[in-house]
Amino acid sequence: MSLTFSALADPTRRAMLAKLSKGEFNVTDLAKPFLKEMSLPAVTKHLKVLEKAGLVTKTREAQWRPCKLNGEAFKDVSDWMDQYRIFWEESFDRLDAYLKTVTAKKNVKGKKYGSNKK
Amino acid sequence: MSLTFSALADPTRRAMLAKLSKGEFNVTDLAKPFLKEMSLPAVTKHLKVLEKAGLVTKTREAQWRPCKLNGEAFKDVSDWMDQYRIFWEESFDRLDAYLKTVTAKKNVKGKKYGSNKK
Repeated sequence: MSLTFSALADPTRRAMLAKLSKGEFNVTDLAKPFLKEMSLPAVTKHLKVLEKAGLVTKTREAQWRPCKLNGEAFKDVSDWMDQYRIFWEESFDRLDAYLKTVTAKKNVKGKKYGSNKK
Repeated sequence: MSLTFSALADPTRRAMLAKLSKGEFNVTDLAKPFLKEMSLPAVTKHLKVLEKAGLVTKTREAQWRPCKLNGEAFKDVSDWMDQYRIFWEESFDRLDAYLKTVTAKKNVKGKKYGSNKK
């Protein structure tokens, strides 16, 4: 998990994953949008980090080397996250409860002032 | 997101989060199990990384400083993960399909050999 989270902790690598979520790409096409900001060796280094973490798989098909996302690594992150699900659901419940209180107070105030004006 | 993933990329910090998933702890109690392996300043440094990433909130209540998980930061990770859900669900579908094929083949073989033996 440390390797995976460390791989995810970089905006270029997350952008590469986002691109791969649209389909398979060979290294050249995957690298293209990043070459304005960095060299090809820098891009391939990022790709290697993603491969090492198991998030991306690079296959060999003759001269064509498509890269694709590896669902299992994402599943591992999701499984790890699941133990904390209750916390973000709770925080949403609290927000929901708070918003209901605010709305209820507003309605009471609205009615009060409304009846005073009449 | 880089800060959050970077904070998650350390086993001590993930262990601290796991402890906080059981309830709120003050810094001293949270630090206790980690003091066999590292100093108190090292533990508080890890805690600061978690706070900076928004994963943990430390409040002040007189002399008692409880730490707790911040659900919203986990929600952000979960939301980011959601765009890749299709990939791990797909990989499970493929595994499921493969297992069904293997089971079907086994059944066919079993029947064949079964009938030969009779």
